[in-house]
Amino acid sequence: MSPYDYLCDPAAIGRRSFEIIRTECDFSRLTPVLASVAERVVHASGMPDVVSDLRFSPGAAEAGREALLSGAAIVADVRMVAAGVTRSLLPAGNEVLVALDACPPGEALSGTRSAAGMERLSGRIGGAVIAIGNAPTALFRLLEMVAAGAPKPALVLGFPVGFVGAAESKEALVANGLGIPYVALSGRRGGSAMAAAAVNALALGRNAP
Amino acid sequence: MSPYDYLCDPAAIGRRSFEIIRTECDFSRLTPVLASVAERVVHASGMPDVVSDLRFSPGAAEAGREALLSGAAIVADVRMVAAGVTRSLLPAGNEVLVALDACPPGEALSGTRSAAGMERLSGRIGGAVIAIGNAPTALFRLLEMVAAGAPKPALVLGFPVGFVGAAESKEALVANGLGIPYVALSGRRGGSAMAAAAVNALALGRNAP
Repeated sequence: MSPYDYLCDPAAIGRRSFEIIRTECDFSRLTPVLASVAERVVHASGMPDVVSDLRFSPGAAEAGREALLSGAAIVADVRMVAAGVTRSLLPAGNEVLVALDACPPGEALSGTRSAAGMERLSGRIGGAVIAIGNAPTALFRLLEMVAAGAPKPALVLGFPVGFVGAAESKEALVANGLGIPYVALSGRRGGSAMAAAAVNALALGRNAP
Repeated sequence: MSPYDYLCDPAAIGRRSFEIIRTECDFSRLTPVLASVAERVVHASGMPDVVSDLRFSPGAAEAGREALLSGAAIVADVRMVAAGVTRSLLPAGNEVLVALDACPPGEALSGTRSAAGMERLSGRIGGAVIAIGNAPTALFRLLEMVAAGAPKPALVLGFPVGFVGAAESKEALVANGLGIPYVALSGRRGGSAMAAAAVNALALGRNAP
């Protein structure tokens, strides 16, 4: 006998979680695909109020979903994002690349390793779904690359987190005049779990669970 | 020329981040080791107000630090936590185990895979630093195991996140009459990034960066 009384059936936990989320959040201004992204981001963070901080360009979530269905690669900034992507949900065995891994430690760099890694993946970002869960500099560098003529990603999921550059890089993404589709969380909040949850929602393409 | 003006030197970004955090947060009620955990949790989440939701038993952070110095294993509930642990900070090449990986998918289980995985690691939790960043059921199962006589971990970092069981499992951890040292974030908030940040702070053993 456990001294604790709690739900332990995974299906029941999932159902109850999304029931609570749908009670507490208003997804009515969102398209179905975007609503599924939003509810998974809430689920991953435990914070219903992130919905009001979501920013997105029209059709962005749908473009990301279609790209995944067509086999687009997913480019994450860090391994934690890649670790959170549920491979069994990916509709086309999509490749998952990590910018940080494209730039091994130990090299002398003028900036961050995640930004250098993003640059080294420049041949892979056209048409890809980019999931930034950590590094503002990776997002800034991506915007610079597209501004300089690199092919556009299908979608940028902008969830860098923190106190220096996170809010600013997401503002720059939202203000991008480059035609880059985006879903982003404004402000300091974000993180790998939210970025991975957004990828998983696009891969599933409908409400969870 | 970049159209964006932002800090891109990693050392400068780190310094400025922790300067802002120390301006916005009050760590004065915390011991030095616990303060370093708290500031890294704030850093990982972008949320200064998590400090007031931290719960801890006296000496818990110090016990975790000492365990890592002595070579204790780290047991994470999920791969995202393990992916966030900076191996180069670990003071004794500490092993990092993942509960979910101890229970391969596909088996018929009565509960969650993370809880079953925690149970399969029962021989490894005595003296270990347990880092829960996702699954309330893994934390509940751990408490049940110790209540049933399993050896106590050196420290439990309780950061499960979400709407079903997260707050409750952390309440149970804080209320544990088993003598299990803990650092936990009360409420629905939490996550793999915070759990990994807490491990990294203990491994570093002093203020960042």
